[in-house]
Amino acid sequence: MALFRGRWQRADALHGSPLQRRLRRLSALERREEARAFLNAFHDATGAGKAARQARWSAVRRELARTGHYEHTPDELAYGARLAWRNNGRCIGRLLWESLDVVDCRHLTDPAQIAQRVFAHLDEAHGDGRIRSIISVFAPVRGTDLPAWIESPQAIQYAAHVQADGRVTGDRQNQEMTRIAMSLGWRPPLVPGAFDPLPLMIRDRDDRRHIVDLPPSCIREVPITHPGFPAVAELGLRWYSVPLVTGHIMTIGGIDYPCAPFNGFYMGTEIASRDFADRKRYDVLGDLAQAVGIVPDHRADPLWKDRALTELNAAVLHSYRQAGVTMLDHHSASDQFMTFHRREQAAGRCVAADWRWIVPPQATAACDVFHLKMRNFHPVPNFYRDRGDEGLRMMPWYGDRHRRRSLVWLDRFHRRWKIWKRMAG
Amino acid sequence: MALFRGRWQRADALHGSPLQRRLRRLSALERREEARAFLNAFHDATGAGKAARQARWSAVRRELARTGHYEHTPDELAYGARLAWRNNGRCIGRLLWESLDVVDCRHLTDPAQIAQRVFAHLDEAHGDGRIRSIISVFAPVRGTDLPAWIESPQAIQYAAHVQADGRVTGDRQNQEMTRIAMSLGWRPPLVPGAFDPLPLMIRDRDDRRHIVDLPPSCIREVPITHPGFPAVAELGLRWYSVPLVTGHIMTIGGIDYPCAPFNGFYMGTEIASRDFADRKRYDVLGDLAQAVGIVPDHRADPLWKDRALTELNAAVLHSYRQAGVTMLDHHSASDQFMTFHRREQAAGRCVAADWRWIVPPQATAACDVFHLKMRNFHPVPNFYRDRGDEGLRMMPWYGDRHRRRSLVWLDRFHRRWKIWKRMAG
Repeated sequence: MALFRGRWQRADALHGSPLQRRLRRLSALERREEARAFLNAFHDATGAGKAARQARWSAVRRELARTGHYEHTPDELAYGARLAWRNNGRCIGRLLWESLDVVDCRHLTDPAQIAQRVFAHLDEAHGDGRIRSIISVFAPVRGTDLPAWIESPQAIQYAAHVQADGRVTGDRQNQEMTRIAMSLGWRPPLVPGAFDPLPLMIRDRDDRRHIVDLPPSCIREVPITHPGFPAVAELGLRWYSVPLVTGHIMTIGGIDYPCAPFNGFYMGTEIASRDFADRKRYDVLGDLAQAVGIVPDHRADPLWKDRALTELNAAVLHSYRQAGVTMLDHHSASDQFMTFHRREQAAGRCVAADWRWIVPPQATAACDVFHLKMRNFHPVPNFYRDRGDEGLRMMPWYGDRHRRRSLVWLDRFHRRWKIWKRMAG
Repeated sequence: MALFRGRWQRADALHGSPLQRRLRRLSALERREEARAFLNAFHDATGAGKAARQARWSAVRRELARTGHYEHTPDELAYGARLAWRNNGRCIGRLLWESLDVVDCRHLTDPAQIAQRVFAHLDEAHGDGRIRSIISVFAPVRGTDLPAWIESPQAIQYAAHVQADGRVTGDRQNQEMTRIAMSLGWRPPLVPGAFDPLPLMIRDRDDRRHIVDLPPSCIREVPITHPGFPAVAELGLRWYSVPLVTGHIMTIGGIDYPCAPFNGFYMGTEIASRDFADRKRYDVLGDLAQAVGIVPDHRADPLWKDRALTELNAAVLHSYRQAGVTMLDHHSASDQFMTFHRREQAAGRCVAADWRWIVPPQATAACDVFHLKMRNFHPVPNFYRDRGDEGLRMMPWYGDRHRRRSLVWLDRFHRRWKIWKRMAG
């Protein structure tokens, strides 16, 4: 125990705040390389002339050498954010990467301002129900200077209320977040429900926690009903329309943006097969089975879960369509990804993809993506949650063309060595 | 083209026959290490005394030094085959690994004898319908001396008949095998059907191909019916009861057994969600949907494939239960794997598992295995298809305990280097 505490303290003293511990650690050379690779990609895409390229690179190189940081121009930021989406191996909906709306909010640094912008983001993304993909980019990490960041993994999260008898109402995944919010002064509704939105949790530049209640007007929810079974509506299920992901760090050209909330729209299985069905989330499969007339008994019907899952998915798809909110079923999403994959290959680019995340959790082998060979080579720009996870593996990807093979190998050995060191440490 | 032919010929001259090209290439030191590690595991399991261990190891070491080969005792072979099953990261049904029946057929070298034994194997495995897991082990590779081996991936495979109009009847996966069988003199039935068993293809020691027709008595088939929809029976689907895998190479203690057919029993999704449903296999989803009253139209019902898949799975499970043939549904298989995983961990062993293969292709997130963190570290003994696939990654696993960490790393670097060299070559 003493040993553990000792190590903990040492880690804390060495690496600082919770955010500092999540950030990628890049040497000056690595940062410079990533900046160079990104600027090249940006200039290739915009068709910049040689003089403009060299002027920009000289400026960035000088600034990096002097301060270890450089500021992206608004155009670079917009292109970088789109590339980060295109490169993210876990997203099935990347076909629309070029249509991402990038909102430059780097001047907003106060938690209250950030919260206001997040609420506006929710409004803009929802619009009239046809959801737009937007990213709001707040201040980056400047050298050792950390900005404010959002601690909630998503802007809208439902609370988990532990009852007197030990049962949990709400999203079991958020028990710890609910506890923290309550310790910071958040009061749950008098009658705790299964879908009480938690406040937005923001850490300011000095690592102090702030909570900001979401205005009810920016939480648009869809009540879940089933076209064939009215009893499903009586379960009282509902879900929000805009998945606004706030817990990821965006990395562009060696610069980390720890506060860059972005949204897409939902694929049906995310809500039906995971949020509602997982045993560590809402775990409604048994109740739903009874509502649609399936006996939840493995002996009587070994496939009752399969049947219930299909009905739950049908209910979610139906409800979102009724409410006029954009949602994709997993077969269409799979087709979209195949189109994206073809287009990328036609453009001479290799697609980074993680099979375990791309293949939907429903009718897997019937989706074309199941049969596609994938590899996640973690290119930058990209999004990551922390350096212990994908962050450590990220590096520029040159398609093994632009550099001598030996250099590429050396680079990979170096990264691999860092990963091994960490796994053994 | 000339370049390609040149490389091809060189590869052929260097590495010999098709089997030779599939075998792992081990240095004398690697083979010795694997033999040592396997004998240690075997002696640990049998509780052998120090004198017996040393005597056996001296004998094996001498034989390896002299001939590059050693013969397993029957007990070693039996234990090694069970370990190979336990270590195979792609199998979900490993809970029963200790109950594998190992039949020592190393003295059978003639293709006709091998075929006879395979037919007997099918009979014994089927029994009265309660399928037994059996492996028949034929002669190993002795130095540069290759034994006869079975070219068919499974003992029972259905032919693919290309019609005059270009459509294919039967298992589309086997078009090439059907072509080869016909070129060797096999004649399909006068009226080609969807389920015509192909002959067993065996290569003798001189790489000559032999085909042997399977006696109808050893092919037990289950006609697929659905308890609720008689129209399903009219589709005329059927499948065999015993999946007897013949295309894998078993590697034990540095010795490769390229002809070691083994069988388990089926999990329902293997047949329903893959063999029947895959577009490159039987592709029956549309017909089945109509047989159970589902409209196969994505616009009308985006989940029609999910529904059809569930009914197809239900039909397969029902038919096998009716026929009294052992079959596991995927939820039970997932539970069995979780039990296996717990038992292995309780025994202080790490489980090698490939998430993409273990998670069933149906109701994935509702199976506990979906939420289990897995890693396939390719331990030996094991089964592999060829060295380009898993074979190259296989190495003894010491649980990072028995050796100095630096040595473990050195070993991994070496293997990784071999893999990279191959990927770049």
